[in-house]
Amino acid sequence: MTKLINSIDRSLRSRAEQVIPGGMWGHMSTRYLGDAYPQFFARSEGCRLWDVDGNEYVDLMCSWGPIVLGHHHPAVEDAARRQRERGDSMNGPGDVLVELAELMVDTVPHADWVMFQKNGTDATTACVTLARAGTGRRKVLVARGSYHGAVPWCTPSLAGVTTEDRAHLIHFDYNDVQSLEEAVDQAGSDLAAIIVTAFRHDIGRDQEMPTAGFAQRARQLCDLQGAALIVDDVRAGFRIDLGGSWEPLGVRPDLSAWSKAIANGHPLAAVTGSDRFREAATKVYVTGSFWCGAVAMAAAVATIKTLRDTQAIAHMRDMGQRLRTGMEALASRHDLKLRQTGPAQMPMVLFEGDPSFEKAALFCASALRNGAYFHPKHNMFLSAAHAPADVDRILAAAEAGFAAVAREAAAG
Amino acid sequence: MTKLINSIDRSLRSRAEQVIPGGMWGHMSTRYLGDAYPQFFARSEGCRLWDVDGNEYVDLMCSWGPIVLGHHHPAVEDAARRQRERGDSMNGPGDVLVELAELMVDTVPHADWVMFQKNGTDATTACVTLARAGTGRRKVLVARGSYHGAVPWCTPSLAGVTTEDRAHLIHFDYNDVQSLEEAVDQAGSDLAAIIVTAFRHDIGRDQEMPTAGFAQRARQLCDLQGAALIVDDVRAGFRIDLGGSWEPLGVRPDLSAWSKAIANGHPLAAVTGSDRFREAATKVYVTGSFWCGAVAMAAAVATIKTLRDTQAIAHMRDMGQRLRTGMEALASRHDLKLRQTGPAQMPMVLFEGDPSFEKAALFCASALRNGAYFHPKHNMFLSAAHAPADVDRILAAAEAGFAAVAREAAAG
Repeated sequence: MTKLINSIDRSLRSRAEQVIPGGMWGHMSTRYLGDAYPQFFARSEGCRLWDVDGNEYVDLMCSWGPIVLGHHHPAVEDAARRQRERGDSMNGPGDVLVELAELMVDTVPHADWVMFQKNGTDATTACVTLARAGTGRRKVLVARGSYHGAVPWCTPSLAGVTTEDRAHLIHFDYNDVQSLEEAVDQAGSDLAAIIVTAFRHDIGRDQEMPTAGFAQRARQLCDLQGAALIVDDVRAGFRIDLGGSWEPLGVRPDLSAWSKAIANGHPLAAVTGSDRFREAATKVYVTGSFWCGAVAMAAAVATIKTLRDTQAIAHMRDMGQRLRTGMEALASRHDLKLRQTGPAQMPMVLFEGDPSFEKAALFCASALRNGAYFHPKHNMFLSAAHAPADVDRILAAAEAGFAAVAREAAAG
Repeated sequence: MTKLINSIDRSLRSRAEQVIPGGMWGHMSTRYLGDAYPQFFARSEGCRLWDVDGNEYVDLMCSWGPIVLGHHHPAVEDAARRQRERGDSMNGPGDVLVELAELMVDTVPHADWVMFQKNGTDATTACVTLARAGTGRRKVLVARGSYHGAVPWCTPSLAGVTTEDRAHLIHFDYNDVQSLEEAVDQAGSDLAAIIVTAFRHDIGRDQEMPTAGFAQRARQLCDLQGAALIVDDVRAGFRIDLGGSWEPLGVRPDLSAWSKAIANGHPLAAVTGSDRFREAATKVYVTGSFWCGAVAMAAAVATIKTLRDTQAIAHMRDMGQRLRTGMEALASRHDLKLRQTGPAQMPMVLFEGDPSFEKAALFCASALRNGAYFHPKHNMFLSAAHAPADVDRILAAAEAGFAAVAREAAAG
């Protein structure tokens, strides 16, 4: 097993401890990942990352989703560079806004219109606000444990959150029609929206695809009650179906939130909506200083066209399946049981009998030292830049991880 | 008077009407600015912009604040390019995060720590949440009419906003000590924070610098009550004083929100805070997919160092003063009275006796046709790229604007 060099990372961490609370904030903090994980990165290319100490990883996180075509994708970066030479933040948008808006409306069947933001949270919050403005109602139904962003109405930590910030949320269980119906009853005539993630991708538990029955019933209930169906496609968008992740189910939302992969790592988010909410969208005031940045929009046009004109999504699925099959075979050989769930291109890998994620931590630390960047309890992401040889490289690192878990099990 | 060509802009607008609600959202919509204003821009350089029809403007909006050194500033763009070649969105931040965090803490006297976001609204919302987490209280005092962002707790439009979103806000009047004291009394033992903009820069009214008495009393009340003083420096930050806009008053906040000019147009925001709120900052969960983007951070390091190592702020003030003096002289010559308020580098120009901004609209349309981009009722922005000749070019365009207003007054 290779020993990682991490002296530069350690030095940066101790400097960061002085000037950043806890050394790092949010989902990219390695605080919960153990000492093996590097906090700081020096370089990226395709599906590979190098940490500040020069250790190389074949990556399975894709920057937690945004990198869908691979780092430094030529078509995306060329489009970004050409726009950058003209202008980025100006007194209004570039003409690329119209090109991108038309492309989104052409690509997403439920979309009659689109608006752009910077964060996934901007998009989910705008969807909820639009639904309230369009219906004149207040109650929003949210699945227990679903992540929809990091502002008071939805953030997972209650620190600094008041009761009123969540006064009009009613919870249901994902994929549970009865609990959804009960929540709809509870909202009564005040039901503004049902918001659902594209599939169940809560941290630390098996992923679940939405059942057709659940999705159809959600659509039907919104139609019956005059409420908005919102699909939060921030995490899954552009990896499952370019038309939206519920498109294969034949269920179309009224509003969708998009971000992460929309511009292959350039900061952008979007809300798409149906004509029913167009007027509401002219009344709600949402804006941000950089929302018209033309470079991210040019990158998004190139990203979406590349996804559309290539077999990128099918390729990611194939590579995810190659990983899944390989992982299953390796685990079996070590008499270890895995639960691999969700779409193959957004894999979640959990160990059976591992409630505290100790096996996962051991596996990941070992795989990391052998050059593959796994996450122990968050779903991961394939990109179009993952070739079969990269997946095989990941599997070779995983073999070391499984061996470490098996040794520990034998010792215990 | 030159006739603007705007056929490409018109064509883009009608396409945009189809795919974007109202054709454009937020503060960059020209809906309220009249037909003279171009909606879409093709190119920018220094303090100049070109719209999609090729019309050139000497700019006074600086992209509504972000452009503080001028478009395509070489030091900023070189730093951004060098970082981009290494990596932007990765699985964690680049080492540039630590460099930028240390630079912010070194530059801002009240800052013991910093966290980064993407939107000004992210920063103001985080400040409020941090204040609540750190104090265990709920009430936040906000000046009537102050703009702190565009999410339900603070957005100027009430469409889609519920009463509960603002349940714990109490209003006072900016620069009015008595109204502030009354609001503090009303909050009682539940006072979490007082949030104030750097100066009063509400749309459509005279700007007001904070009086020393008001600023000192706000600080004192927060100290007495154990609440947080939050300065929202999103709009004014990096143009008044690099240490924070209340630094010249000798009043230091507990928390500050920054954005706009922090990276000369690259998307970034920041919260700085004192040690008192450091622990709270480790508990509040705020994050975003692109908040660790290394390119914007590299651009911020270059922007802040350039501002620090040059006379940029003094230069902007001088250019603003040159504009102000010139505007006053021109207006007088036409027997027009102006109200020019606020810091010279963030000018607000209003006409006396113009409650509906009709004179302003006429002035701006005419100045625009003559190659200067003014705003009729929002504060404007100088940048370090504005040379005396650029200001004189603006004044030449303004002369046409004043003449148009004077003619209309004579005709009326």
